[in-house]
Amino acid sequence: MTRVLLTGFEPFGGDATNPAWEAVRAVADNPPDGVELSTACLPCVFGDAVDALRAAVERHDPELVISVGQAGGRPDITVERVAVNIDDARIPDNTGAQPIDEPIVPGGPAAYFAELPVKACVAAVRAAGLPASVSQTAGTFVCNEVFYALMHLAATERPGLRGGFVHVPFAPEQVTDKLQPSLPIAVTAEALRVITVTAAARAADIKAVGGATH
Amino acid sequence: MTRVLLTGFEPFGGDATNPAWEAVRAVADNPPDGVELSTACLPCVFGDAVDALRAAVERHDPELVISVGQAGGRPDITVERVAVNIDDARIPDNTGAQPIDEPIVPGGPAAYFAELPVKACVAAVRAAGLPASVSQTAGTFVCNEVFYALMHLAATERPGLRGGFVHVPFAPEQVTDKLQPSLPIAVTAEALRVITVTAAARAADIKAVGGATH
Amino acid sequence: MTRVLLTGFEPFGGDATNPAWEAVRAVADNPPDGVELSTACLPCVFGDAVDALRAAVERHDPELVISVGQAGGRPDITVERVAVNIDDARIPDNTGAQPIDEPIVPGGPAAYFAELPVKACVAAVRAAGLPASVSQTAGTFVCNEVFYALMHLAATERPGLRGGFVHVPFAPEQVTDKLQPSLPIAVTAEALRVITVTAAARAADIKAVGGATH
Amino acid sequence: MTRVLLTGFEPFGGDATNPAWEAVRAVADNPPDGVELSTACLPCVFGDAVDALRAAVERHDPELVISVGQAGGRPDITVERVAVNIDDARIPDNTGAQPIDEPIVPGGPAAYFAELPVKACVAAVRAAGLPASVSQTAGTFVCNEVFYALMHLAATERPGLRGGFVHVPFAPEQVTDKLQPSLPIAVTAEALRVITVTAAARAADIKAVGGATH
Repeated sequence: MTRVLLTGFEPFGGDATNPAWEAVRAVADNPPDGVELSTACLPCVFGDAVDALRAAVERHDPELVISVGQAGGRPDITVERVAVNIDDARIPDNTGAQPIDEPIVPGGPAAYFAELPVKACVAAVRAAGLPASVSQTAGTFVCNEVFYALMHLAATERPGLRGGFVHVPFAPEQVTDKLQPSLPIAVTAEALRVITVTAAARAADIKAVGGATH
Repeated sequence: MTRVLLTGFEPFGGDATNPAWEAVRAVADNPPDGVELSTACLPCVFGDAVDALRAAVERHDPELVISVGQAGGRPDITVERVAVNIDDARIPDNTGAQPIDEPIVPGGPAAYFAELPVKACVAAVRAAGLPASVSQTAGTFVCNEVFYALMHLAATERPGLRGGFVHVPFAPEQVTDKLQPSLPIAVTAEALRVITVTAAARAADIKAVGGATH
Repeated sequence: MTRVLLTGFEPFGGDATNPAWEAVRAVADNPPDGVELSTACLPCVFGDAVDALRAAVERHDPELVISVGQAGGRPDITVERVAVNIDDARIPDNTGAQPIDEPIVPGGPAAYFAELPVKACVAAVRAAGLPASVSQTAGTFVCNEVFYALMHLAATERPGLRGGFVHVPFAPEQVTDKLQPSLPIAVTAEALRVITVTAAARAADIKAVGGATH
Repeated sequence: MTRVLLTGFEPFGGDATNPAWEAVRAVADNPPDGVELSTACLPCVFGDAVDALRAAVERHDPELVISVGQAGGRPDITVERVAVNIDDARIPDNTGAQPIDEPIVPGGPAAYFAELPVKACVAAVRAAGLPASVSQTAGTFVCNEVFYALMHLAATERPGLRGGFVHVPFAPEQVTDKLQPSLPIAVTAEALRVITVTAAARAADIKAVGGATH
């Protein structure tokens, strides 16, 4: 049994729900075999989100952490490759804070790569008949901050902790009149189950195409 | 009980399945109350598709016909507004035919508007929490041909027959590695159920925004 | 010498300029050989736009009319195939009017096809190294109204008058921070010159792929 | 006079030209005041591109290097924020090599931030009436490799050397029938001139919104 922590986020940017947290809850309601699952819902607030992540890690002592956030506009489940050491908010967070080009960890490395088998996770979701791809950027908002802070925690305080970040599309009910792609929460949850099992089972990645020319 | 005929299409363009037909079948497996439902799967072949539509109308004598086709790349359920009197194939049909700028009905009107409460159908799907919009073009391929032929049949031979066309997105399993929007068959089927009930219940449309600046 | 009338539009939807009119002016400043060019700038107002079009046709007695409008978001020059008999405004016009699902000409045909060699125009623009395609919908706003009214005028009062509609992208200065495609006015003007010459030179179209599956 | 090296790339991915190099050449033909400009055209080949970059830096001893590459599909000029230490080729390079998930510099940092005033460059291009934005990813192909290698060179061997990467859209002649955004070479060249002057004039950036939520 691998101890796995899944985190989602509260709603932000004017939305009433956040499909990341809804999908994490759905996984918790029906967890995959072979993992001992815990969950946490993080505030969409710079700094506070990281504090909540650290508290959840303290509480649950996971071996694997997969943080999940909403990427409105993306059509598929995206497994993030890299977290960068910068907060640069296009919109205010849920307290109204809007940092511009500030380091998440002053003096920290410019970036961390995910400690997930990114390509294997993408391949497993696809093999389950669901759409997925590698993402080359997690943005510069709270999602990226949590992702960076998670990898920094693993690198500096929690050797052996593995983890990464998964972005999920809007749910249909968020975009009924918006001409935006969406996937139902149940579909997103199933993809998260597949990613959880895949990441718990292996640390090494597969060789598969998944880059971007730009 | 309104007699309703739903039609889908066989796969085309290299795809193994067609979500339009899969969703129509799912509606037939679990039909909404208040309608007497029949279905037909049309070939994706210019001319033959119209023959199959006419045969299905003869057989089932419907009061309402909703033809359904795949619109790969669209993120939502789209209710078509207008069918135009032209076949102009971007790709070959399933027999390899590729007509260019030929009228569907020589001497027929340039276009027919759907005899569906288009805006009411869109509003009802949205009210059910699913994404939908009005589409201003059904293209110039077999879908549009069937749509035009249906409306021409109603206008010339079957007074009182109402009908229209609905385009549906890819299913997730078609686009696992394609970065395209998709909706599960069950979601699409639920939207078709809502449209069927709405169109069966009313002929007049509501006043609602749904146009396009271009 | 073919007498050609080019029309553009005043700005709308909050924009300060309209690339359609700017490009038409640029063509007038440097017109192609072989045509006698006149121009008109139409108000972006339902009804008034048609009145202004009719007045310009009365004044200039053209053999060919090409109306031009902005299609913000499209990446290329699009030659419209068909005008439909409906006003359905997604946003208010420049007087605040927002008609919903009203016929442009009560009792008029559902649609008119352009009387332009649409495919030949697209091919000629491409041969000039500029991006172009056929569009299957001119929308349901003032552009479509003018297009429909032009074709109705030709069909009912001005036999022999040919014409059609061309949509053009944003100009770069409109989208400096908007992540939208654009083409400079000079590029759009050059495409309009090519279309003008092509449409003046031939009535019959070429056989070329240019349809849409949906 | 600031010594500035601009680099472009040879064509790749089946294209006959590369707008990055064409635009760099256009800048060299008509350079901005206040800079001493040199240029280099890099092969679109992993490893060889870096060798060519290093050779050009050796030869010209620049104070500022701006590498430029094509980002087909993007509608605007994008100033890259961060280079990551990974080669992950979606398509083969011009020798057929297709590395998957290999570090550019084994043991090197996961990423480098651009040493350009990224936001000031974007603001200056916009102020010139041209479309620009910050990009959060330069991809994982040869462009990113060159960008990473440039920043690594500055960090390890050439203290004081500043530099970064700019991605540019397709040119119109590349996409005449492709429904993709484009900007003429002259427009792209003007944007590069503005970026060159802005980056030569200041090292510190401005505070301006330019992040991404994902």
